[in-house]
Amino acid sequence: MNENIIEGRNAVLEAFRSGRPVDKLYVLDGCQDGPVKSIIREAKKRNTILRFVDKERLNQLSETGKHQGVVAFAAAYEYAEVSDMMKLARDKGEDPFFFLLDGIEDPYNLGAVIRTANLAGAHGVIIPKNRAVGLTAAAAKASAGALNYTPVAKVTNLARTIEELKKEGLWFVCADMGGELMYRLDLKGPVGLVIGSEGEGVSRLVKETCDFTAAIPMKGDIDSLNASVAAGILAYEIVRQRM
Amino acid sequence: MNENIIEGRNAVLEAFRSGRPVDKLYVLDGCQDGPVKSIIREAKKRNTILRFVDKERLNQLSETGKHQGVVAFAAAYEYAEVSDMMKLARDKGEDPFFFLLDGIEDPYNLGAVIRTANLAGAHGVIIPKNRAVGLTAAAAKASAGALNYTPVAKVTNLARTIEELKKEGLWFVCADMGGELMYRLDLKGPVGLVIGSEGEGVSRLVKETCDFTAAIPMKGDIDSLNASVAAGILAYEIVRQRM
Repeated sequence: MNENIIEGRNAVLEAFRSGRPVDKLYVLDGCQDGPVKSIIREAKKRNTILRFVDKERLNQLSETGKHQGVVAFAAAYEYAEVSDMMKLARDKGEDPFFFLLDGIEDPYNLGAVIRTANLAGAHGVIIPKNRAVGLTAAAAKASAGALNYTPVAKVTNLARTIEELKKEGLWFVCADMGGELMYRLDLKGPVGLVIGSEGEGVSRLVKETCDFTAAIPMKGDIDSLNASVAAGILAYEIVRQRM
Repeated sequence: MNENIIEGRNAVLEAFRSGRPVDKLYVLDGCQDGPVKSIIREAKKRNTILRFVDKERLNQLSETGKHQGVVAFAAAYEYAEVSDMMKLARDKGEDPFFFLLDGIEDPYNLGAVIRTANLAGAHGVIIPKNRAVGLTAAAAKASAGALNYTPVAKVTNLARTIEELKKEGLWFVCADMGGELMYRLDLKGPVGLVIGSEGEGVSRLVKETCDFTAAIPMKGDIDSLNASVAAGILAYEIVRQRM
């Protein structure tokens, strides 16, 4: 999986607008609508190499199969450090607000969570090195450009990172059905929101390291929400309480 | 192999005659012989979306390469009626709570919304016939089983359905960035939550038919949340207020 491929109109346009260096842009020949014209204009402004190709060629280049007529090749997404996220919060004069994803395997969910983190005003997303998807092209596309603004750090051991951040004043809430109803918890202050994997939830060790477990009320027949939806609901309970 | 693709004249005609719900029918443009005419007649009788396409497009859609000028896409699950949803709410002694999706095109998002609807205690999901994904195998899979419990209805005109449900006492809130902050709205009572498509949001006509527009607070740099995440956040604000 090439992490430097950006596919889809929103993702490519956002990459240009955020100032990310794009080496090459492939556009479907004959594609003339508004969004594509904007992308071409941005590419020319930045001296990006521009190639008009047929659909077959684009399909070959595409990794997700959902290029919408544009495929760009950029510098790889760089992982940030957790210290960058702390600095970002400090620079903004805000209490740190991080997402920690314990083993999300679906790039679509990872991208959607980065998107949510950006709009909920979080300062970064922390993912573990093992048993988890990284910043693939599919994750980047699903982030709809948020990856250009919201730092993502990759750590060796999530529980150890939590312990270290606790020393810096953060406390941690983990999503778990067996927890306290989220509306009853005080979710203000410097906080890390821990979301588990699609199948397994938060792992035992990570759960034990957290200060609280928060439950989303469930009235239905099935077991669990989609991981990125659950992350969104919990994140916005934090947003609501902070307002 | 997609089990919902039906190819070839006999197979497609049989699907219609057996009453299997067919979302979309692709017919080779200019094809006028008897069997094809019979198929088109059945499609019209059942309000199936009908598209006349060229041979190249049909070949692309086909999996067997033996389409004989007709390719149909069947629904993976059966659609319910809006009246079934009203009955479900009545039987439970609850105020009706429906999701209405205005043009969601991504089956993954549709499935995630059905999953959320189930767990938020909603009584059904309403989708429009055109410009939207139906209950494909991918949507069914993403719903994680919720499709077996939460009814999904397909309607010809979303705005008209809203008008009809208003007469039954429901009111409608539409997700829109320009709306009132969701925490400030009273979201209790019999309610329909209207979510727009991934790219375009809620269409003008549908928006005008709604009673309120609700905004999720956005603190970030990008334009919008993933549609299924936005639906989850708004749905759980309704859940919170109802508790």
